[in-house]
Amino acid sequence: MEGATLSTASPEAILDRLRSAIDQQDGELARALARQLLDEDAAELFEGLDRTEIRALAALLGDETLADLLSQLDEHDAADILEQLPVEHAADVLEEIDPDDAADIIVQVDPDFSEDILVAMEPSDAAEIRELMAYRPDTAGGIMTPEFVAMEPGLRADRAIAALRKVAEEAETIYYVYITDPEEHLLGVLSLHRLVLSRPDALVEQLMFPDPVRVNVNDDQEYVARLLTERNFLAIPVVDDENRLMGIVTADDVADVLEDEATEDIERLGGSAPLSEPYLRASPALLFRKRIVWLLVLFMAQFVTLEVYDHYKGVLKEQLVLAMFVPILIGTGGNVGSQTVTTIIRAMAVGEAAPRHFVRILGKEIATALGLGVVMGTLMFARGAITDGREFGLTVGLTVGVLIIWAATVGAMLPLILSKLRVDPAVVSAPFISSLVDATGLVIYFTVAGLILHVG
Amino acid sequence: MEGATLSTASPEAILDRLRSAIDQQDGELARALARQLLDEDAAELFEGLDRTEIRALAALLGDETLADLLSQLDEHDAADILEQLPVEHAADVLEEIDPDDAADIIVQVDPDFSEDILVAMEPSDAAEIRELMAYRPDTAGGIMTPEFVAMEPGLRADRAIAALRKVAEEAETIYYVYITDPEEHLLGVLSLHRLVLSRPDALVEQLMFPDPVRVNVNDDQEYVARLLTERNFLAIPVVDDENRLMGIVTADDVADVLEDEATEDIERLGGSAPLSEPYLRASPALLFRKRIVWLLVLFMAQFVTLEVYDHYKGVLKEQLVLAMFVPILIGTGGNVGSQTVTTIIRAMAVGEAAPRHFVRILGKEIATALGLGVVMGTLMFARGAITDGREFGLTVGLTVGVLIIWAATVGAMLPLILSKLRVDPAVVSAPFISSLVDATGLVIYFTVAGLILHVG
Repeated sequence: MEGATLSTASPEAILDRLRSAIDQQDGELARALARQLLDEDAAELFEGLDRTEIRALAALLGDETLADLLSQLDEHDAADILEQLPVEHAADVLEEIDPDDAADIIVQVDPDFSEDILVAMEPSDAAEIRELMAYRPDTAGGIMTPEFVAMEPGLRADRAIAALRKVAEEAETIYYVYITDPEEHLLGVLSLHRLVLSRPDALVEQLMFPDPVRVNVNDDQEYVARLLTERNFLAIPVVDDENRLMGIVTADDVADVLEDEATEDIERLGGSAPLSEPYLRASPALLFRKRIVWLLVLFMAQFVTLEVYDHYKGVLKEQLVLAMFVPILIGTGGNVGSQTVTTIIRAMAVGEAAPRHFVRILGKEIATALGLGVVMGTLMFARGAITDGREFGLTVGLTVGVLIIWAATVGAMLPLILSKLRVDPAVVSAPFISSLVDATGLVIYFTVAGLILHVG
Repeated sequence: MEGATLSTASPEAILDRLRSAIDQQDGELARALARQLLDEDAAELFEGLDRTEIRALAALLGDETLADLLSQLDEHDAADILEQLPVEHAADVLEEIDPDDAADIIVQVDPDFSEDILVAMEPSDAAEIRELMAYRPDTAGGIMTPEFVAMEPGLRADRAIAALRKVAEEAETIYYVYITDPEEHLLGVLSLHRLVLSRPDALVEQLMFPDPVRVNVNDDQEYVARLLTERNFLAIPVVDDENRLMGIVTADDVADVLEDEATEDIERLGGSAPLSEPYLRASPALLFRKRIVWLLVLFMAQFVTLEVYDHYKGVLKEQLVLAMFVPILIGTGGNVGSQTVTTIIRAMAVGEAAPRHFVRILGKEIATALGLGVVMGTLMFARGAITDGREFGLTVGLTVGVLIIWAATVGAMLPLILSKLRVDPAVVSAPFISSLVDATGLVIYFTVAGLILHVG
């Protein structure tokens, strides 16, 4: 089969074949190969084509196929391709893309060129896109599409189906029909499912589900995505403050939103500010900016560690071996802190834990840390006792046990407290907890050493 | 409005009101309050109800509403509630739940009771669930539903719509109709959209989209979810090795899959094995087991750090101040390693980076690290020079610069190499990179110190 031979090729080989398909004006092959580059997540290879090749490929594919491909690309990649086309052609292609996706793409296009494209588009299509561009991208307004089907409450079912035929091409989904009054206030929702199966002379207001679940244009996109997911809706209506229907968010947008939010959380947990662009597009200068801020903050935190350490210099002079065990002790504490904080922040993000579970979470984490502390403390005691005597073993064993409990407590409490204070708990990254445990860990270490080894 | 007063109440207050609604046999209020507990992500509070109350609530809600609520709950919570019901009632409720969700719930029910429930169910419903239980839960087979609509190629459009009316109640989605031959081989797909808008006497095989994108029952659930997302499908057909249609995966399952996979990655990146249960349900014993393995592995890695440190004991005796700077140096290296590894692992998970981008990624990371190294190195030089002289400042400044570049290189290369070796790159957690940088960082530190300070 054709698919089988294609799929063993490397993305670069596919690009080469695509290039020769363009040369030979083989539209069908070009389409199959372009699609395959997408499937291989190798869309960035389109960058390897020059302007003439991109234009030839666009002509070969036709507006509709190109629009389809562009809406599946990351918006940055799509904008890059669009910028290579003549203005008129770019406008035609953009008209074929769902307005919510089109708005995402056009904001990534060079501002001079994007204005030209919008001017060249059908005025009604351009107006829709401009309207969407006015909403913050991370709100319901920013991800909604205005292409829903609305009907009056007094319409008969058979007339409603006839009306659907006319708009089916334009609408993003016809699986839900929204019932609105003449002032566009949302009255109810009716599924195509139900409409098709009902008596022809029934009125849509008798069939509709009244007062459906809705969201406000300014609601956070993550809230909207979770609502759609939990309720298993195909789409959810978006209204303004006066309950006027402005658009719908469809289920196909949910996965993107949830993925973006998870990516942000992961990057924050790792100790950087979230990248606004796909990784491969991010320049070293951007990566630098996203990382340096937290590095500097953590650096300051570690100055405290330095001061603490310096304070106990005298103890080290008496027993140099204490210094040897510093990395393993604060390292283990940091590891437990990292384990705890990532688990809890993720549980909070997916709604499995909340500040009201404070006592329950703290109890659970301290019980877990007790177990971890006993095991690691015993091992550490053994390691210390073998090389440096029983009392020294006791010092490091006890220190690691206390440190583990302390790290787990801080790692569990901080995200809960921040969330209660309405700060995004994901700012408490794993490196942050580690740095915190470093400084306090030294104090614990030298205090325990003072008590057991009678130094300092 | 009722909704407004309800929403200001705490989840515990809602539970109290629910309890009295059950007492007063107020079905409508009970339904609204139960729904509200779900909306507040407070489903775990249902545990606060005793068996009698759960049974009374179930009777009040009716099978269909209860089924609806259960399918929106986490499967563990749903199983807990189901276990409180009489066998016959549990069987009736389970029949109302989509078989893919029902199978997820029943595997969480106590094995003795679950067998009783399955026996009490309609044999055809029970058979569907048993079949689904046979697939690995993280495969297309494990998340698919067998309740799709299949038709013969020779059917007329109007007869097809009439046939749909009959099965609409049962099917999970009627938005796609699948065309199969008598041996159930998948021939094509047809959207309800297109069916409704077509001429009544057209044959479905003329209308259908032939050879649609499909997945195999054994394909990984994450692959299936990403395919659905990228192509914006509402559902995707699942076939066996002989191309027989076994089920469909619908868009409402995608978000759950992607969320679960992101959660697993986050927990791994934080240095624990992924929890198989929601956080609040995980016992300290489970948390202990998920964390202790990596702690022990990292502990062993830190033994190496200890040995390295011990090896340079002589140097420390000459210049004790070198010890003071160990935490801040290896801490900074660990932070950069954590930033790099989390960013790259996430980029790989969402398909934004792959092993074939090795050179590009490495170049980008080293360029970024050079920038970070110069800034942090300068600051470190200043800090060291102020308290301990210019040569010492040079030692720690140079060390942190080299360490940052080294940490970024390791953090970027390791996930790519592991992925190339077909090992899940998320096993390279932030703590793992930190521990690696600890040991090698000390070697770098003492080597630089030896060169500049002429010690050791």
